[in-house]
Amino acid sequence: QSNVTIYGVADAYVGFGKHGENDLRGVNSGALSGSRLGFRGTEDLGNGLKAVFVLEQGINIDEGSGSGYQRQAFVGLGGSFGTVALGRQYAPGYFFQYDGLGGAAVGPQSILSNYAGLTITPNTPARWNNSVTYTGTFSGLTARAIYSAQGVEVDENPSDDDAYGFGLDYSNGPLKVSGVYQVAKYDFAAAPNDEKQKEWGLGASYNFGVVALSASYQSGDNVQGVKDRDADLWTVGLAVPVGAAGSIHLAYAEVEFDRPAGASDTEVKSYTLAYTHALSKRTTAYVAFNRTDNDNAETAGLVGYGHKAGSTFGGENSDLLGVGIRHTF
Amino acid sequence: QSNVTIYGVADAYVGFGKHGENDLRGVNSGALSGSRLGFRGTEDLGNGLKAVFVLEQGINIDEGSGSGYQRQAFVGLGGSFGTVALGRQYAPGYFFQYDGLGGAAVGPQSILSNYAGLTITPNTPARWNNSVTYTGTFSGLTARAIYSAQGVEVDENPSDDDAYGFGLDYSNGPLKVSGVYQVAKYDFAAAPNDEKQKEWGLGASYNFGVVALSASYQSGDNVQGVKDRDADLWTVGLAVPVGAAGSIHLAYAEVEFDRPAGASDTEVKSYTLAYTHALSKRTTAYVAFNRTDNDNAETAGLVGYGHKAGSTFGGENSDLLGVGIRHTF
Amino acid sequence: QSNVTIYGVADAYVGFGKHGENDLRGVNSGALSGSRLGFRGTEDLGNGLKAVFVLEQGINIDEGSGSGYQRQAFVGLGGSFGTVALGRQYAPGYFFQYDGLGGAAVGPQSILSNYAGLTITPNTPARWNNSVTYTGTFSGLTARAIYSAQGVEVDENPSDDDAYGFGLDYSNGPLKVSGVYQVAKYDFAAAPNDEKQKEWGLGASYNFGVVALSASYQSGDNVQGVKDRDADLWTVGLAVPVGAAGSIHLAYAEVEFDRPAGASDTEVKSYTLAYTHALSKRTTAYVAFNRTDNDNAETAGLVGYGHKAGSTFGGENSDLLGVGIRHTF
Repeated sequence: QSNVTIYGVADAYVGFGKHGENDLRGVNSGALSGSRLGFRGTEDLGNGLKAVFVLEQGINIDEGSGSGYQRQAFVGLGGSFGTVALGRQYAPGYFFQYDGLGGAAVGPQSILSNYAGLTITPNTPARWNNSVTYTGTFSGLTARAIYSAQGVEVDENPSDDDAYGFGLDYSNGPLKVSGVYQVAKYDFAAAPNDEKQKEWGLGASYNFGVVALSASYQSGDNVQGVKDRDADLWTVGLAVPVGAAGSIHLAYAEVEFDRPAGASDTEVKSYTLAYTHALSKRTTAYVAFNRTDNDNAETAGLVGYGHKAGSTFGGENSDLLGVGIRHTF
Repeated sequence: QSNVTIYGVADAYVGFGKHGENDLRGVNSGALSGSRLGFRGTEDLGNGLKAVFVLEQGINIDEGSGSGYQRQAFVGLGGSFGTVALGRQYAPGYFFQYDGLGGAAVGPQSILSNYAGLTITPNTPARWNNSVTYTGTFSGLTARAIYSAQGVEVDENPSDDDAYGFGLDYSNGPLKVSGVYQVAKYDFAAAPNDEKQKEWGLGASYNFGVVALSASYQSGDNVQGVKDRDADLWTVGLAVPVGAAGSIHLAYAEVEFDRPAGASDTEVKSYTLAYTHALSKRTTAYVAFNRTDNDNAETAGLVGYGHKAGSTFGGENSDLLGVGIRHTF
Repeated sequence: QSNVTIYGVADAYVGFGKHGENDLRGVNSGALSGSRLGFRGTEDLGNGLKAVFVLEQGINIDEGSGSGYQRQAFVGLGGSFGTVALGRQYAPGYFFQYDGLGGAAVGPQSILSNYAGLTITPNTPARWNNSVTYTGTFSGLTARAIYSAQGVEVDENPSDDDAYGFGLDYSNGPLKVSGVYQVAKYDFAAAPNDEKQKEWGLGASYNFGVVALSASYQSGDNVQGVKDRDADLWTVGLAVPVGAAGSIHLAYAEVEFDRPAGASDTEVKSYTLAYTHALSKRTTAYVAFNRTDNDNAETAGLVGYGHKAGSTFGGENSDLLGVGIRHTF
């Protein structure tokens, strides 16, 4: 028992939302951080070596659903050289969080990167099956690399859906800078959907004390293997401390879609205004508002598709107001 | 790790049963208490405030199945005012247990309330998704309230399947009294199935020392939204201590169904005789017998439907004898 | 919390494999030991009695999947007489591990017994639902018995798929000897598939210090209820310590299938060569190679079926090389 640490997040909020003619009202899970339950451990092997493991399950606390350890599941060996691990793991792009909200689900970079089909995102597309990772930190510089076989298939070409990525984070006092590059192969599909999805991102943040500023730019080509389906996303964010325990967060992001010839190019804008209040180091109360402004027929947003017969949602705003609590354990 | 308490119940029994021409023999889970594994924690936030969370998974220990935290999953804030929590939670009717068996699955009130489609029941229909609850205890009086959005749907009328309920428990030495009221909306359905299901219950128990007596009455109108489909259920129970560790339990319940015009009214009777023996505070050995006596074409009972080709079960008795052990941890 | 011990195994490897014209490359789970997460506890009841429970979940760490407690889930009572338990439990044949690899998934006895449909195997067919077990150990002799109702069905003949088994293990210093007998009923099926599957096995191992030798023979009749579908499997294995922490393992097994009249008899051979290196008592690095040599149209092996259009795998070798780490916690 002493070999295992149990940890997790219980984050739930009451949400009021609207997307076109449709309304949402209810309790949802994880506006600030995905609810989860995890088991992890570290064993000192001597000679500077250690063994590590993580099993981390995502949970929808509003319905009590959750199964498997699909947030993270790995075992690895670490040392002064870094850590090498095997399992379902984060691609470097998961840690690319420059929206002033720490990659919160209610933040615009999370909403738009996920909607755009990008793997540089604080969401499930950054969790890769059957992967080998390397992570090493050397005086403020963290290097990350991943190679994923995705499915473990047995055929002529088991590597035709593989993916790989690299990331560098530099952290020095108030400054943080990151660069990420990720590639996902779609060699198993037929043209024009068999192109490599290539993504890169650059982000930076600086904490001036009275305000922390952050910004990022990311670009994806041939998204989901479709030739010339491109997405460019930029984000700016700020966080302002209010009193000893409060913080105001404002984040804005835009994504521009370049579609293959014949389809029109479109844009989605999203912004989030939030106030978080630390009730303790582990527990935060929050209120957050997100508006996602859809161009043309786009349907992005936290509220999601509607079900009203005959209504269309393309181009309609998605608005969500959430009041909730995040407890980490 | 110190932030999390792991707890649970492992309850299994060998069962012998009969329902009409059909037989049952096997190991089953949870005659006294549903088998479960839970994770919970409390954080003292100062100023009399605390944060709480619970993740509780139901388990069928006979087959090792179990997934999610569908018994309970919530996060909340508590204080002298009571506790407000968000998630999948118990409606007040879950705690309406006046059959002398503590709401055991083998007890008649559990069997009949579940069979009748009532939400005042110690079973899954009392676990509501997407709910906000309030619970407060003030010198022996516990007040409970819940509002549930059930599914988090996005449409014109996201509240058309909402449910809500209230309960008051009063406890004073050997006396316990409860009142419950619960409503489930079926506004999404078409008439005559779009009525509000309305339920209420009153129960009381008194422990005389040589015997504890309990009784309850509950009524449900428009069950599952069907206009004029009503169910009235009453229970009486007693528990007699035998020696230092033993207890004999006898419980009886009847449910009367008033069906919409044209369908005949029917009745089901059920009784349970059980002996429980505490091997320790945490571990109980038990033997229990339930007979459920079905009127007309009713098919209630623990043994369930049969599979013999050509046989009918409507109106047949369901008998179950179980010998088992419940271990709490 | 002090009532529960959390334990488990995180075992993953990078695998390179080939089966006929098909290739495999990727990360897989559990070559040495199945990855798992378990919860268990023991309560001292006084008078030499104790209550025990286990909930053990299997995990595919490469994809983070895992649900339920289908490795083991039981509650029981133990004492000087032994332990009686109820739930999903191991048949005695699970502990029949005489291949010099401790029943590892990469070992030939595991591969062939599983492929042959035998229940004397260190795999899922030895985990029986709805079972009652007895286990008792008396000065080196361990007796095991199980009766399983498999499904808890309600029909005329709920025992038509029951299974039962017995096992004796004798352990004395370097010597270990086992005998197992298991029967699974297929009375629910129509002839010729309604025969009882009957299996027995004998195994022994002796640790000479410089080498540990092991051997086993097992036989199954009417496998999966099919009249005259028989399988005979023998295994030999050795393990040689290398230095303080290393060990070389070599295991060989053959299975011979006697098919009903009209079908040809076939054979599959499999061997595994492995090196394991203990980084600590809890953590082992390993490299293992298995070749499974298929006769006629047999398709056994760790690599599995292929997907190349038009290719056939019957009779092709399955080769797997794995490099990995097993961490127990």
